[in-house]
Amino acid sequence: MKPSGPVVESKVRVRYAETDAQRIVYHANYLIWFEVGRTDYCEAAGYPYARMESEGVLIAVVEARARFRRGARYGDVVTVRTRFAGLKSRGCAFVYDVVLPDGTLSAEGETHHIFMDIEGRPRLVPPPVAEAFRAFGGM
Amino acid sequence: MKPSGPVVESKVRVRYAETDAQRIVYHANYLIWFEVGRTDYCEAAGYPYARMESEGVLIAVVEARARFRRGARYGDVVTVRTRFAGLKSRGCAFVYDVVLPDGTLSAEGETHHIFMDIEGRPRLVPPPVAEAFRAFGGM
Amino acid sequence: MKPSGPVVESKVRVRYAETDAQRIVYHANYLIWFEVGRTDYCEAAGYPYARMESEGVLIAVVEARARFRRGARYGDVVTVRTRFAGLKSRGCAFVYDVVLPDGTLSAEGETHHIFMDIEGRPRLVPPPVAEAFRAFGGM
Amino acid sequence: MKPSGPVVESKVRVRYAETDAQRIVYHANYLIWFEVGRTDYCEAAGYPYARMESEGVLIAVVEARARFRRGARYGDVVTVRTRFAGLKSRGCAFVYDVVLPDGTLSAEGETHHIFMDIEGRPRLVPPPVAEAFRAFGGM
Repeated sequence: MKPSGPVVESKVRVRYAETDAQRIVYHANYLIWFEVGRTDYCEAAGYPYARMESEGVLIAVVEARARFRRGARYGDVVTVRTRFAGLKSRGCAFVYDVVLPDGTLSAEGETHHIFMDIEGRPRLVPPPVAEAFRAFGGM
Repeated sequence: MKPSGPVVESKVRVRYAETDAQRIVYHANYLIWFEVGRTDYCEAAGYPYARMESEGVLIAVVEARARFRRGARYGDVVTVRTRFAGLKSRGCAFVYDVVLPDGTLSAEGETHHIFMDIEGRPRLVPPPVAEAFRAFGGM
Repeated sequence: MKPSGPVVESKVRVRYAETDAQRIVYHANYLIWFEVGRTDYCEAAGYPYARMESEGVLIAVVEARARFRRGARYGDVVTVRTRFAGLKSRGCAFVYDVVLPDGTLSAEGETHHIFMDIEGRPRLVPPPVAEAFRAFGGM
Repeated sequence: MKPSGPVVESKVRVRYAETDAQRIVYHANYLIWFEVGRTDYCEAAGYPYARMESEGVLIAVVEARARFRRGARYGDVVTVRTRFAGLKSRGCAFVYDVVLPDGTLSAEGETHHIFMDIEGRPRLVPPPVAEAFRAFGGM
């Protein structure tokens, strides 16, 4: 996992719905925030994920990993910092930091993906997508 | 809203993910439990919702209403009691009670639905579906 | 339910996590968006909900109602329009519209609330909170 | 990560709310199912997590990892198979398999935890908890 290229930042305000009885954000929600970061990354790279889907390219999550450092709380505006971490012919990866308002690291993680066609079969990354990510991601 | 016919009961154990910082279940999750009740109701009526979808009949929620009495807590096994409350040519309705382990009412609600085809257009309820619900629901 | 005073607008980008197998937003998520609207409303009124909680005032949802018109889709930036709809000695209410990017109404709803102390007992609205809402809400 | 001792099985029926626009379960929900497995494991071991909390012992998730093989669909009853994978003085770990109705592996993962007191500070595992897990887990 060698992240490269620009960091895309997303601001997420913690919803009450995302907290749990320990009064901090329930851990699985960080994976949803990673998705928010990924969405913003694809848009910043010039290839919004909604456009990929409309062109028949689905991206599936095949692996996710997160380390939870310090739980965010209701009302916090956290920053999700997303970087690209590799593009292969059939998949790609991202790494993420989630940072609290005071700059403390809340969580960090990574996700691995494969490209699929509309029927869910693995497929090669389409050249325009690869090109957009490479141009943006400095690879 | 005149509920009729049998009550179908579903047991749901409260997940930690469903609690919030007030240490009770976040209210929107009750709508998900209503869906659990609806799923069990359709199955009990002999027409599982997954089968409807595979036959091209989608059911959309067009209205939902809930009153929250006493919040369930992590680990509670609540009972969702679902009844049918009306079948029209293009839609149907259900009513729900959610009961805590000690018998106290936790929440109650109702949902209203329309039938749609695979493209999301309103459609008439297919006769076999209507027949199954009528036979089971005492209408 | 007579909404009064200013409309507070919140922008919410639909997350993939919020969609369901009908490819639109799962209906219960609209209640979470109403909460986003409520949070922004309280902040705009000068009394952020996190501050209320830190001062020992909890607000519980006792009733929620929503009508779903047209499902939002992944990537849509919807606008939640929140208005105040009543303040009593022990509770308050809000009404909401959720509007799609093209101006179409996606859903509308209302929520009713009571004030509680830290142990979950009903309590009177504290005068500073009432004053903030009245001054902002034109009541 | 050396899982040891008994496998505790939990049945989970996929909710519509858990699916996404790819018509399979949104990946973050698997972490919630791991929590369902963990809850059942603690109960099977004779020390329900709700009891731990009532005695002032919180368990936080400090790391989670999952590999997603084949997405579960609405209505599937999946089996979560949970095993214990280590107990230290200040933490513990679990491993999970999620299996589809036809026996195919849907996902697998692991979570790592620390014990905390009510204020969120790390604490040693209380002897009765350690004893229960050791007796049950064959360690």
